[in-house]
Amino acid sequence: MTDIAATSAPPANLGAGTAGGRPRVVVIGGGFGGLAAVRALHDAAVDVTLIDRTNHHLFQPLLYQVATGALSPANIASPLRGILRKQRNARVILGAVTEIDVDGRTVRGTSFEAPYDILVIASGARHHYFGHDAEWEQFAPGLKTIADATDMRRRILGAFERAEEATDPDQQREWLTFVVVGAGPTGVELAGALGEIARDALRDNFRTIDPGDARIYLLEGVGQVLPSYHPKLARKAQRDLERLGVEVQTETLVTGIEPGRVTVRQGAEERTIAAHTVLWAAGVQASPLGRLVAEGAGAEVDRAGRVIVQPDLSVPGHPEVLVVGDLARVTGDDGEPLPGVAPVAIQQGQYAAARIRRGLTLGGEPFHYRDRGKMATIGRGSAVAEIGPVRLSGLIGWFAWLGIHLFWLTEFENRLLVFTQWAWNYLTKARSARLIIGRPPDSSRDAPR
Amino acid sequence: MTDIAATSAPPANLGAGTAGGRPRVVVIGGGFGGLAAVRALHDAAVDVTLIDRTNHHLFQPLLYQVATGALSPANIASPLRGILRKQRNARVILGAVTEIDVDGRTVRGTSFEAPYDILVIASGARHHYFGHDAEWEQFAPGLKTIADATDMRRRILGAFERAEEATDPDQQREWLTFVVVGAGPTGVELAGALGEIARDALRDNFRTIDPGDARIYLLEGVGQVLPSYHPKLARKAQRDLERLGVEVQTETLVTGIEPGRVTVRQGAEERTIAAHTVLWAAGVQASPLGRLVAEGAGAEVDRAGRVIVQPDLSVPGHPEVLVVGDLARVTGDDGEPLPGVAPVAIQQGQYAAARIRRGLTLGGEPFHYRDRGKMATIGRGSAVAEIGPVRLSGLIGWFAWLGIHLFWLTEFENRLLVFTQWAWNYLTKARSARLIIGRPPDSSRDAPR
Repeated sequence: MTDIAATSAPPANLGAGTAGGRPRVVVIGGGFGGLAAVRALHDAAVDVTLIDRTNHHLFQPLLYQVATGALSPANIASPLRGILRKQRNARVILGAVTEIDVDGRTVRGTSFEAPYDILVIASGARHHYFGHDAEWEQFAPGLKTIADATDMRRRILGAFERAEEATDPDQQREWLTFVVVGAGPTGVELAGALGEIARDALRDNFRTIDPGDARIYLLEGVGQVLPSYHPKLARKAQRDLERLGVEVQTETLVTGIEPGRVTVRQGAEERTIAAHTVLWAAGVQASPLGRLVAEGAGAEVDRAGRVIVQPDLSVPGHPEVLVVGDLARVTGDDGEPLPGVAPVAIQQGQYAAARIRRGLTLGGEPFHYRDRGKMATIGRGSAVAEIGPVRLSGLIGWFAWLGIHLFWLTEFENRLLVFTQWAWNYLTKARSARLIIGRPPDSSRDAPR
Repeated sequence: MTDIAATSAPPANLGAGTAGGRPRVVVIGGGFGGLAAVRALHDAAVDVTLIDRTNHHLFQPLLYQVATGALSPANIASPLRGILRKQRNARVILGAVTEIDVDGRTVRGTSFEAPYDILVIASGARHHYFGHDAEWEQFAPGLKTIADATDMRRRILGAFERAEEATDPDQQREWLTFVVVGAGPTGVELAGALGEIARDALRDNFRTIDPGDARIYLLEGVGQVLPSYHPKLARKAQRDLERLGVEVQTETLVTGIEPGRVTVRQGAEERTIAAHTVLWAAGVQASPLGRLVAEGAGAEVDRAGRVIVQPDLSVPGHPEVLVVGDLARVTGDDGEPLPGVAPVAIQQGQYAAARIRRGLTLGGEPFHYRDRGKMATIGRGSAVAEIGPVRLSGLIGWFAWLGIHLFWLTEFENRLLVFTQWAWNYLTKARSARLIIGRPPDSSRDAPR
């Protein structure tokens, strides 16, 4: 099989539909996985169509900084059309996919129809409430999109406003109590940022309350924060969180979320935390497109809705349909499913592109994840990182975190602006992107619905 | 009468209500006028309460840059609590005013009650459709708040998206047609920015359309753009707008706005422009609080809803109620009402504070506006400025505009970030804050309601 990049002949195994033209590659989702696939096809003799519901690629690992007022949405989001403007073989459709016709090889949406020869599905995951979506989501928002982040910011800053105007001391305390559910990287980062907001950024901002009185609970079901990290790093992270005033509670399961109240089980004991602001950083569920394509192709999804793909990321029986990123269930070297993190998605997107360039034959070589490490930040001057056998923490970990995140930001300009903003935030302990857009939470939330 | 700043005794003419304590000053509105009043009272022996519906002060003159994707909302908005955190005699209430009890000297709102000895009303103006508010506002949004700006941005960027996916050439052309109503500074700046978006920022972003084909109409009822400027500067501004592809139509009155269509009258002739995106930069109407206070105090408002105040900015019969900024109708040296611009509001706020510091006696010295000039920008490297007898245009005008706007931005950090962003935009002709948040306009807008 010849390389598509070198010849413009369509690969034989793409079947009908190319009509003698260049193979049509449709990519659903402009996150890390989908965008990596599109970019890696930049010099391939294919026509690429990227479909996304938003007009921007989002640097999700920094979303918690938007939610906590340290960065503006535009700092971590780049317009997809701008990123791809010089890639002449790629076009972008802004729209939502409503149907994937696996047999007819066509993706349909609200206002478009995109026939394909090869389909790459990279629509990612949403947060997930373990069967309680309908009840819990309204009270405990998660963090996956810009809209989620500005909503979370509105709730966090609005809670301090409500505490300031509360006349009842119980109400005041409840508005000053924050619960973060789940102590993976996002939960740890959110809780640390909340600690900094309460102790530093809002200092002297109020006249009735002292934001430093805020109580921040970080709840985790298993026995340590950052469950996937080495216990020694997890202990360091917990110590740094506690220095920021965060109350870490491990072995703690959330059993109920109601307006103003979170119920948790610790061992045999059940107790209640009175809090108006609950932030969800626990489970995620794959995008509904996973189920859609699995049904159409006769494939299977796992409990989290991820498509169980072949080692070459294709859907069983459909070599022309590849799934990458959080939507794909792929088993790693350790026998566990690969985690839903950006490096996995990027490498899978690049792998998918490499397979497409070779006409979907890659000698059966399966996808293999090269784990380059992981890191999470706790606050100003504190982060933990695990890079192979190397474990970093504290200030050194934080500088490593800073450097790598600045390096990875998609557009150079964003890097420049984020660096300027971070430098300023670091020097002043301020958070200037503290706009409340839309209505702050009000006491009608307290009433049962 | 002694100075309040020097003694803490309440001035005698404040009447009852101070109860022997420090005079209570309530300021409604944290825009240029209200904030200037609060800050100028920083060392006065008064207790200041600032009430605003949003949690931020907004640098409105740069709002069009948020609407056109050049800046992020947080770049031009500073949290009021942050600005006032070191001013210990000031507190901030986030809420909407629903009642001004002039006789009982109390302001009431959704969740608060604020008794006052002195009231400063600075609630500004909204856009206004000359009696067509209910019909026109939904199709032709104005630009006064952050939410207005992000809505306008969504419509502008969404229109290019809709043009890209349109299959009917007429629909495509209508999505690529933009109408800006009103050629005052905001209209000129919006139209110029639209020209730059179409010609530079979106270049190569689309595959079906060429954004450079966009038609941008700037409509003005009188005989020149920038009606309050010298005709020579207005001609230069018009020439620079035309270089950016803007079609300027003066002596043109809008008589109808419907989905997809604007009707205009030029002399005796009526014609129609088929356009899906109409931006409103014409009339403004004072905040409804003007009427509210006028009714309570037996005062009058003018046609634009502005309170007709005494030369000392007080409401007739109520020396303890001052009105500043866009809400006040004050006659200037030329016999015309002072314009609704930031410098007028700031000087009035400072004047109000000076009167309050002197116990509301100022020897009858009326407010006097010192006009330091005005300026409007057309695009990259082009602005017009009128500073006394000096008239600047082109690149020199633009540098003057840049410098003054950077100087005036409230917080140093914003200046740094805005400068970084502007420098980047200038060098690359890019606009990176191009996020569409929320749904882009869809064809349901085309259907009559």
